[in-house]
Amino acid sequence: MSLTLPDAEYQARVARAQAAMARQDLAALLVTTEPDLRYFSGFLTRFWESPTRPWFLVIPGHGDPVAVIPGIGQALMERTWIRDIRCWPAPRPGDDGISLLADTLSEVRGRGVQIGLPMGPGSHLRLPLSDYAALRAALKPLRMVSDQGLVQHLRAEKSEAEIGLIRQACAIAGRAFARVPEVAAAGIGLDRVFRDFQRLCLEEGADWVPYLAGASGAGGYADVISPATPAPLQPGDVLMLDTGLVHEGYFCDFDRNYSVGDPSVAVRDAHARLIDATAAGFAAARPGALASDLHAAMTKVLGPGRTAPGRLGHGLGMQLTEGFSVLPDDREELRPGMVLTLEPCLDMGEGRIMVHEENLVIRDTGPEWLSPPSGPEIPVLEPVA
Amino acid sequence: MSLTLPDAEYQARVARAQAAMARQDLAALLVTTEPDLRYFSGFLTRFWESPTRPWFLVIPGHGDPVAVIPGIGQALMERTWIRDIRCWPAPRPGDDGISLLADTLSEVRGRGVQIGLPMGPGSHLRLPLSDYAALRAALKPLRMVSDQGLVQHLRAEKSEAEIGLIRQACAIAGRAFARVPEVAAAGIGLDRVFRDFQRLCLEEGADWVPYLAGASGAGGYADVISPATPAPLQPGDVLMLDTGLVHEGYFCDFDRNYSVGDPSVAVRDAHARLIDATAAGFAAARPGALASDLHAAMTKVLGPGRTAPGRLGHGLGMQLTEGFSVLPDDREELRPGMVLTLEPCLDMGEGRIMVHEENLVIRDTGPEWLSPPSGPEIPVLEPVA
Repeated sequence: MSLTLPDAEYQARVARAQAAMARQDLAALLVTTEPDLRYFSGFLTRFWESPTRPWFLVIPGHGDPVAVIPGIGQALMERTWIRDIRCWPAPRPGDDGISLLADTLSEVRGRGVQIGLPMGPGSHLRLPLSDYAALRAALKPLRMVSDQGLVQHLRAEKSEAEIGLIRQACAIAGRAFARVPEVAAAGIGLDRVFRDFQRLCLEEGADWVPYLAGASGAGGYADVISPATPAPLQPGDVLMLDTGLVHEGYFCDFDRNYSVGDPSVAVRDAHARLIDATAAGFAAARPGALASDLHAAMTKVLGPGRTAPGRLGHGLGMQLTEGFSVLPDDREELRPGMVLTLEPCLDMGEGRIMVHEENLVIRDTGPEWLSPPSGPEIPVLEPVA
Repeated sequence: MSLTLPDAEYQARVARAQAAMARQDLAALLVTTEPDLRYFSGFLTRFWESPTRPWFLVIPGHGDPVAVIPGIGQALMERTWIRDIRCWPAPRPGDDGISLLADTLSEVRGRGVQIGLPMGPGSHLRLPLSDYAALRAALKPLRMVSDQGLVQHLRAEKSEAEIGLIRQACAIAGRAFARVPEVAAAGIGLDRVFRDFQRLCLEEGADWVPYLAGASGAGGYADVISPATPAPLQPGDVLMLDTGLVHEGYFCDFDRNYSVGDPSVAVRDAHARLIDATAAGFAAARPGALASDLHAAMTKVLGPGRTAPGRLGHGLGMQLTEGFSVLPDDREELRPGMVLTLEPCLDMGEGRIMVHEENLVIRDTGPEWLSPPSGPEIPVLEPVA
């Protein structure tokens, strides 16, 4: 279902945004991407896969948001709490919503001349640059400025309803991971494993499976983003599957490692150490801790020189990855309601790594698992019956 | 598999781009999105689902492209034909690849000061606006200009290898559509049908299923972009499923309608008329015809006042929708190798529509179906055995 959260939740988000907008002297806020638009409106559709049409939501300084959207979205937007819906027949070469958006911004804006737009890390403008130039010209004397992370900051603290949806996404993936021994074993091609695992995710209740990565290799794998090949799993391989499936618009993002046949001592130890590192990151994940504290806690367990470069976790929610990174120098302070991944990575030598990942939420009293946490023993894949 | 096309194909694309760049006085071309970057490099991964890190490919005026990418992508990029790969440890707040990209552009550019960037319809810049501002400042006296549709124009004409991949995607979806009677019937919830249909797509060979839309309603449906609800199919409903599944990085995009139990005369006639309209669009789809000609041919069959607003087809390939639109005023001239959808839509009254969609390629000698074209009879869903 699309409209799973009560109207009051969206209204509270808008009120929080407007309070911050007043502090930042923003006359209005403009969002253009799927998660930002859905965050304030509840508008949920997979139609964003088509890059043809731009979509806009305007948050005025006071009062309710205004949707400025292609006509193809009108019926669905009318099922949200948004009442002021302005449509144009898109695609319309020459003026694909730009004049309608400029008129709307000029009409509904509060005091001042600044229109806030997400411009910081992880954001992008979902609008052709030529149309953005036309918009800025049409808006004068109004001008576009950075929202200074306003939207990202709001989205980072999840409500109980959002946490519940992420927990359900995690539970679905957990059940699918538990069934991997049904579909993966020595001799089976990795591409077939990928297909079958996505099928298991759907059978267990995923609405869809936007993300699946993984790898298989002797004693570890070279990277975690390559697509699957038909190469069959071999005894001694470590198979890793990492999924971001969606339940009612919210992602999980965690992985599982499996040993194809009996694991080597090195692989067995590495898995146990990754679980220990995750537990150390979990223990450190309390309100007031910094993202960098989690990195330090995990690298201490991983051991000197064994941490592969890169971040060891990140924010999670309406996107597979969002918000802060678990990096040595990320000073983001953890707040209750933040949902994140812990993703320690161990260098196995000879260009190989192993990665483990779990999901959790920060509570007033400390961390709480959202994914069903793995035990230290790496699961073993025996020949499929 | 990721690297399904021979190196020579990517090299030919770069050569065509460089010829156009010389005509447009571009010192270099910069691409930032998944399909544009893959078009020139062959870099295929689902990791783009994470919005955290920017990715860049630079096409110099002469010589081979340079990848400027996060370190997490190095191993996979090394498996493509790209040899000059420059990485930074992303995410790196403060300088997330911008200085490395600016240095690269300054070093490899040809003559002149203009860096081309896709800025037109359907494009976006996959880079935070704040980083784009920093890049432009660092690049002076070089400046960013529109590529004037250069990349979109190149991508529109598919090679035989690309056409073959789209044909395979269509064949996979065709087999899945043929199995819909296994999973859909009166009494079954639409959300379950969505899950099961995606499972069928995977079973029939899809790598993944980025797009599924659909609807079900008495004598037609209100829109084509809403997510599925648990509401069960009812006798007399028209069920529509529209999928964009992916085979080795290439999409199909077509739909099928089904009648839940015996169709009404209106539904039966509407389906037959939609098939006739598609056939009329197909017959008009010859080299030299304009997109607007296809619109005229289809609306003539649909009948006066029965065409719902919006486009009746679009380009297709590495994205679910790309390039031109079948609109009354789109003057895009069809060229051999162009792949497109025909998507006539019939207004059924009382806020309901029916849509049919097929995929085809333009050949020197005329059109050729890529999807297995539907017959005029709407398939009937009987109770599942």
